[in-house]
Amino acid sequence: MKQLVGRPGSGSGLVLRLGQASCAAASIGLMVSASGFATFTAFCYLIASMGLQVLWSFGLACLDIYGLRRKRDLQNPILVSLFVVGDWVTATLSLAAASSSAGIVILYARDMDFCSPQFHLPCGKFQISVALAFLTWALIALSSHVMFWILLTSA
Amino acid sequence: MKQLVGRPGSGSGLVLRLGQASCAAASIGLMVSASGFATFTAFCYLIASMGLQVLWSFGLACLDIYGLRRKRDLQNPILVSLFVVGDWVTATLSLAAASSSAGIVILYARDMDFCSPQFHLPCGKFQISVALAFLTWALIALSSHVMFWILLTSA
Repeated sequence: MKQLVGRPGSGSGLVLRLGQASCAAASIGLMVSASGFATFTAFCYLIASMGLQVLWSFGLACLDIYGLRRKRDLQNPILVSLFVVGDWVTATLSLAAASSSAGIVILYARDMDFCSPQFHLPCGKFQISVALAFLTWALIALSSHVMFWILLTSA
Repeated sequence: MKQLVGRPGSGSGLVLRLGQASCAAASIGLMVSASGFATFTAFCYLIASMGLQVLWSFGLACLDIYGLRRKRDLQNPILVSLFVVGDWVTATLSLAAASSSAGIVILYARDMDFCSPQFHLPCGKFQISVALAFLTWALIALSSHVMFWILLTSA
């Protein structure tokens, strides 16, 4: 097995998972604190998707801590295949959620100019929340590629 | 190399590529024929992304025809790696485009009820175009997985 940065059961892997979970949690927090988010289906889907991402990444972070403390090798092919599939599914859901929310944010801020002060919409919070969702997706895509690479080189 | 359904240089691969190109082209056609699409950044991005998808899938369909006519084996690892990367990039762009457009369509049809007859918006065309974009994404994701599997089993 390759000793790649971000591999399961390593310090860098743990940092990557905690980064994903904290970005997703921050995205949820900002979106929930923005008034009127519940009228947008896409923003509710963003919260659901980021919630799933927090659960998945936090679960794997706990597994990384277990691997680090007990010095267990978590890189067996069945476990890595499971990580690849899980990362791929959550990455797809995160990208879809971030993109659909970004579509609405761009519609409001750029196409319709609804973000001007007279409309009193919390556009800043929406924008940062969506940016964090894209950052979460980038981190999970990175994890997904590391897992894919481990699977490829161990096949 | 595995003789998988949808592999490059096979009849099923050709059908898959032509399916992707035609779904993407139909999505562009419907979107362009809907009046007022240009006021939405996400719909313009959908057209750009589906345009790239048509070029990529049609190019690979031509390569499949070449492989079938000359009976050439297109499954060498470098070529398959290129297909995996290209499929992955176009799949990501297609999913982002379809999702951002879907976010707006759902906002208009469900959250804001702007699709009622008095607003005269071509919501039906928008919806079918987005559905075709998702179908394109599903087909390119299928291709991407077949290529990934070929790469994995040949590693």
